[in-house]
Amino acid sequence: MAAGAALERLVRDVADFPQPGIVFKDITPLLADHAAFQAVVTALAAAGRDEAGRPVVDKVVGMEARGFILAAPVALDLGVGFVPVRKAGKLPGETHAVAYALEYGEAVLEVHRDGIQPGERVLVIDDVLATGGTARATADLVRACGATVSAMAFLMELSFLPGRATVGEVPLTALAVI
Amino acid sequence: MAAGAALERLVRDVADFPQPGIVFKDITPLLADHAAFQAVVTALAAAGRDEAGRPVVDKVVGMEARGFILAAPVALDLGVGFVPVRKAGKLPGETHAVAYALEYGEAVLEVHRDGIQPGERVLVIDDVLATGGTARATADLVRACGATVSAMAFLMELSFLPGRATVGEVPLTALAVI
Repeated sequence: MAAGAALERLVRDVADFPQPGIVFKDITPLLADHAAFQAVVTALAAAGRDEAGRPVVDKVVGMEARGFILAAPVALDLGVGFVPVRKAGKLPGETHAVAYALEYGEAVLEVHRDGIQPGERVLVIDDVLATGGTARATADLVRACGATVSAMAFLMELSFLPGRATVGEVPLTALAVI
Repeated sequence: MAAGAALERLVRDVADFPQPGIVFKDITPLLADHAAFQAVVTALAAAGRDEAGRPVVDKVVGMEARGFILAAPVALDLGVGFVPVRKAGKLPGETHAVAYALEYGEAVLEVHRDGIQPGERVLVIDDVLATGGTARATADLVRACGATVSAMAFLMELSFLPGRATVGEVPLTALAVI
């Protein structure tokens, strides 16, 4: 199954969730379909490979909570470690922290200081690129560890929001642009 | 790498987190080590296979948030769909909901009503079996969908807590008992 077709068929729009005026992209039907889920994992992992298919990243980072569902399988697909970026107070070790604005609300993200080593190349994975606040904060956390954001890959990019501009100069892939 | 050895070497104890008196099991060093992460995914997925290695479950369920990191790859390994159990208010569709007591605190878990079909066989995956409150609530959600909990598999079981008794009559695997 092609990842694009899977997204079109199996992501459902939910109006006014979690707030009035927001159209939520619900990926749970896609996750429940093994072939579709596998297709999007393979397609996202391609952002961490060179033209010959060799992995060119050292870690895959996913953001709590939906990002975990995609990023962990992508890390295993690439044969590299997975590092979670979590909301404030969830990681037990020493962390770097960054505050950021969400599409709806505000929050702090953290990463373990020893989770990513200086000089490592990192692929950042999440489900939706919206305003780019979460993605930008995650990139800042990767750089705070002394590492490089090699690429970011998303299931969906909402083109009516300034996510791409917020993230800045990072190779950015979206399997679908809405 | 054997899953047991990976757990012994790469899960670190963090004292007094998130509250005084709790020793938190931090699995992030394990997740950052590809071989160890793959070994535990393979070992957890075995709980969803018969003696010939054939998958005998229709869905894998993981609980927010750390459960997602393990359960999603286990679902892909088994070739079946993944279904998230989430904290209250996070799932946008129609849900079943169950309230439960945590090791530290209290919460509500939800699952999409259409996430699991009646009659399906479900493997439940999480990182730590402690008091069993989360696991029991998740089993109740699976049954509310009309499905069967075929098995539960955990990285670690804390044997000084009554998790196994709380969960009740379900085949239950833990890669390490502490």
